[in-house]
Amino acid sequence: MRLATVRTPRGTRAAVMSDDSLTLLDAPDVGNLLAMGDPDDLRSPLGERIDAESAELAQPVLAPSKIVCLGLNYEPHARETGRELPRYPTLFSKFARALAGPRDPIRLPANVSQADWEAELAFVIGRTTRDATEAEAAAAIAGYTVLNDVSMRDWQRRTPQWLQGKTFEATTPVGPVLVTPDEVDGAADLRISCRIDDEVVQEGSTADLLFSPSEIVSYLSSIVTLDPGDLVSTGTPSGVGVARDPQRFLSPGQVMITSIEGIGDLVNEIRGP
Amino acid sequence: MRLATVRTPRGTRAAVMSDDSLTLLDAPDVGNLLAMGDPDDLRSPLGERIDAESAELAQPVLAPSKIVCLGLNYEPHARETGRELPRYPTLFSKFARALAGPRDPIRLPANVSQADWEAELAFVIGRTTRDATEAEAAAAIAGYTVLNDVSMRDWQRRTPQWLQGKTFEATTPVGPVLVTPDEVDGAADLRISCRIDDEVVQEGSTADLLFSPSEIVSYLSSIVTLDPGDLVSTGTPSGVGVARDPQRFLSPGQVMITSIEGIGDLVNEIRGP
Repeated sequence: MRLATVRTPRGTRAAVMSDDSLTLLDAPDVGNLLAMGDPDDLRSPLGERIDAESAELAQPVLAPSKIVCLGLNYEPHARETGRELPRYPTLFSKFARALAGPRDPIRLPANVSQADWEAELAFVIGRTTRDATEAEAAAAIAGYTVLNDVSMRDWQRRTPQWLQGKTFEATTPVGPVLVTPDEVDGAADLRISCRIDDEVVQEGSTADLLFSPSEIVSYLSSIVTLDPGDLVSTGTPSGVGVARDPQRFLSPGQVMITSIEGIGDLVNEIRGP
Repeated sequence: MRLATVRTPRGTRAAVMSDDSLTLLDAPDVGNLLAMGDPDDLRSPLGERIDAESAELAQPVLAPSKIVCLGLNYEPHARETGRELPRYPTLFSKFARALAGPRDPIRLPANVSQADWEAELAFVIGRTTRDATEAEAAAAIAGYTVLNDVSMRDWQRRTPQWLQGKTFEATTPVGPVLVTPDEVDGAADLRISCRIDDEVVQEGSTADLLFSPSEIVSYLSSIVTLDPGDLVSTGTPSGVGVARDPQRFLSPGQVMITSIEGIGDLVNEIRGP
């Protein structure tokens, strides 16, 4: 199943996507849908259908109670930062206000000079989960989506903690859909890429994740209870702008396309302040 | 005004504290109260009054949409960690599931061996705020409270990012009340301390904060919109266990008392797994 959150004139609605259409469901977003139980039960028989291509999509979960991001979780990217391969997942967070829709323009803040791309596989938790075994952890994953952890390197590196460079308003696009694990074979080996205009700047496979989605869920759930709608982003492969020589950053007028095979694309125009 | 959130048999309720009693208000917690507008308007004329001493208090805001914590924000504490004084506030986050009530026991997780104390002045945002001047920032602070940023040093130091050591389930007590700025003179010079049983382990003054609450609001709001109920913790003075020689950590049976003059005390018994 492919789930999305659609902006309509009467507010946002969760929807299920099939072929070229979206069937609206009785929930304001995919996060609420997951909190209410099995998405299959929530399909209204008279559900309004709209055209998928022209629909305005929001991020699937509007306001996750947790957003957990991993750093240094692809071997080549961990190497390009000059660090040893990690024994534990590096975890940081961002706030729900940082999220944006899959086709929203990304407005570069006036106080930022080094906005960088980070294509990532993300997943959403489907059930309340604590101290999960790896099997329970796998069952807790409701689906997979695409996220670009756009990072303001000048702010990220001001202090030892990355949060401030990671949580600028409406700069982290997510979507376009949440795809259930059966449709993408658990996201075990999917091609992931980021393009800036016509140039591929990142390319990798989710097979190279150092910590897999279920390992991450198991680790996180040994710290804190995970809740339906929680969003976890699994880290980025090599090719970020700050690690290039010379360094490169996003500029107004560019189009950033973040893609994962079997899930879809984020298409975000970069704009000035 | 002194606001609290009370656990009642019918769920939690916001309340206003006067002398020895709490008058229940028409909101489930102080966070909702702030989102609804001026707390003065929400006092029901027939509001039920309960005895403050025997009331079971929750953290004032049950589930802030953001929890922002500062590190290295007192000069002596920044020195004891061996770092230079910072030019920018060091920001990290924790999740709402990490919060606990002001008198709740703190259960040390079985997988943690180095739980440490961090007495902190915290404040709560009262209005939606973006790109605030320092005057607007001061006006955005609804009130002050006490927080102990209990930190699992073994997990905090596993990776470059502190989040995982800072967000264990129900280990960060907050309260007992939210005190409006007029009653504590903007929290400009309040004595702050942490005691373990009868021993004072931390003692300082909020006058030694490197970044003041309004400076923090102004900085944060240049990154992201702040919302009513958002919780910001301003960092801890010197005296943490990990910086001692020999190092010391919390053990079951101890009582941790975190106090700020003019606000109140957190009294948390430390328990085993």
